Amino acid sequence: MTVDLSALEQPIVQAPLAGGASTPELAAAVNSAGGLGFLAAGYKTAEAVAADIAKLRSLTDAPFGVNLFAPPAPVVDRSILDAYARELRADARRYGAELGKPIHDDDDYAAKLELVREQRVQVVSFTFGCPDATVMQSLRGCGCDVWVTVTSPREALLAQTAGATALVVQGFEAGGHRGYFQDDPHTEDLGLIAALRLIANSVELPLIAAGAICDGRAVAAVLCAGAVAAQIGTALMLAPEAGTSEPHRAALATPACTGLTRAFSGRQARGIVNRFMRDHGANAPAAYPDVHHMTTPVRAAARQAGDPDAINLWAGQTHSLARPAPAMEIVCTIGAEAREAAAALAARLAGPA
Amino acid sequence: MTVDLSALEQPIVQAPLAGGASTPELAAAVNSAGGLGFLAAGYKTAEAVAADIAKLRSLTDAPFGVNLFAPPAPVVDRSILDAYARELRADARRYGAELGKPIHDDDDYAAKLELVREQRVQVVSFTFGCPDATVMQSLRGCGCDVWVTVTSPREALLAQTAGATALVVQGFEAGGHRGYFQDDPHTEDLGLIAALRLIANSVELPLIAAGAICDGRAVAAVLCAGAVAAQIGTALMLAPEAGTSEPHRAALATPACTGLTRAFSGRQARGIVNRFMRDHGANAPAAYPDVHHMTTPVRAAARQAGDPDAINLWAGQTHSLARPAPAMEIVCTIGAEAREAAAALAARLAGPA
Repeated sequence: MTVDLSALEQPIVQAPLAGGASTPELAAAVNSAGGLGFLAAGYKTAEAVAADIAKLRSLTDAPFGVNLFAPPAPVVDRSILDAYARELRADARRYGAELGKPIHDDDDYAAKLELVREQRVQVVSFTFGCPDATVMQSLRGCGCDVWVTVTSPREALLAQTAGATALVVQGFEAGGHRGYFQDDPHTEDLGLIAALRLIANSVELPLIAAGAICDGRAVAAVLCAGAVAAQIGTALMLAPEAGTSEPHRAALATPACTGLTRAFSGRQARGIVNRFMRDHGANAPAAYPDVHHMTTPVRAAARQAGDPDAINLWAGQTHSLARPAPAMEIVCTIGAEAREAAAALAARLAGPA
Repeated sequence: MTVDLSALEQPIVQAPLAGGASTPELAAAVNSAGGLGFLAAGYKTAEAVAADIAKLRSLTDAPFGVNLFAPPAPVVDRSILDAYARELRADARRYGAELGKPIHDDDDYAAKLELVREQRVQVVSFTFGCPDATVMQSLRGCGCDVWVTVTSPREALLAQTAGATALVVQGFEAGGHRGYFQDDPHTEDLGLIAALRLIANSVELPLIAAGAICDGRAVAAVLCAGAVAAQIGTALMLAPEAGTSEPHRAALATPACTGLTRAFSGRQARGIVNRFMRDHGANAPAAYPDVHHMTTPVRAAARQAGDPDAINLWAGQTHSLARPAPAMEIVCTIGAEAREAAAALAARLAGPA
């Protein structure tokens, strides 16, 4: 293993935060605090990711990770997409936007794989699936640790068999996209502690816990439950270094329900419930990334207009606990809270019975 | 507070386990191990509960709890129940049973309240709602601690305002019925760590964590996350002292998906997915306890026949980790694991950075 998570100064890994919040400055700040910073390759060209890597390397000497989207499942029936497009037309009109083309691309997978190999990025993580054993070997041959995002013991076993170095165990509380290998309506959504305990009993790999971890008590909790580090995402989205949009920041800071929806991207993701989710959640097809491309212009126009009602307000369930502070301060504070929680519990349980 | 949870020898509370698994012998064994045993009053007559209390008192001198169901929401439209009854007829025929009458009773609430007051039961917990301030005061006036099961910060605040002594925070991972005050389809189902962190930031009361806690690492996790004790249910259902049916025991011991359903009782509850849930989950109305009474004879006949496909196989998400052992051994082992996890984490986080 290139990066020994148990030796991190803070037991904290940054979530990649594809789609806007990810910046090299954020990853550098997490590194400076003693955590492990991450870049999101998703939704960017390989060239843009290369530029992010170069920028991050100018800001930090410490290891970091880059997250890639595994290629999507086969394209769905075109008529299903047409039906959803008809439903979305009124929203596009409302924001003066055109719907995007329902492209079924693979997010420039091959070029990004080549990039992270060539750049010998220390940690390469995957979401939405598991790379095959050949890809896994080629990455590990370049000195990259390979992490796979999993949501169930079954996926964990597949990733271990394919040769993963570590697993990001995502609980259903997590903001943003569910990392299922397949977006199947019959999948059981496991809560984070349950997922950690079941997966820790199924595989031998180090586990990184992800899902609504917004403070140090939650970090200590997932470490007790078997994780070697906690991945925090929403907790960092109010940092000045994050690229979070203004309407998104305002929504995160306010107590509000979150829910899972395919309305924005064609893949289950957790966001703060808004009109777009309520209107389209029931009819949105499982067609990723086609639906993502269809709604991109509508979401961009709504963001431009400062209207949160048609933006994908990705957020973990504890978003109201996110703190507006520099990322380095957030990570150090959460780390200190985790130490305090662990010490207090050990003292209580060791005390006179 | 009558029962100081932080002074328990084991930071473990037994879940009430209404509907079959609850026995005085199980509660006594949990007490003997240094945890807090519980009796379920639900689905029993007040006389049967009185007998359970007498039996338990003959087995233990330690405090224990009794769980009551708060009265249900108003009755639903009769035509909705008739439609569901038509759907269930084939199942009744399959097992040679008649559907039960869709009675809208309150589980003998007043008589049970009177009983626990008169018996000065140390802990009286409520599920499915919050007793009003008058009931709360009368119980506390009799020396009873009053715990209310909550699933959200909103419910936690209502229970605190009404005068609760402590809150049972139920994560969506939990087996059996969701404890929502109202079974509203728009409710956000919070994962256990998220629920604990949000509620700990909203109220001042001691929190007991519930939801798929099957081993000591999970206990340590919820204590880090802010709970003063962990409530375990499924973890005890394979104990010989539990009244768990044979087909239910067999299902718990096998890895299998769980899901939330209203099919059996008219209220969301988590069980191992079986044919009855798949066939009726989508159409079952939110009509508790009417639907519970309708399906009772069918479930009893299926249980009698040893057929798990029409039994409510309540189970938390980690049911496959439940251990077949005497309840005292289960509680002591889980307690020891929790101590070990807490000590190991404190040592790691205190170590050289």
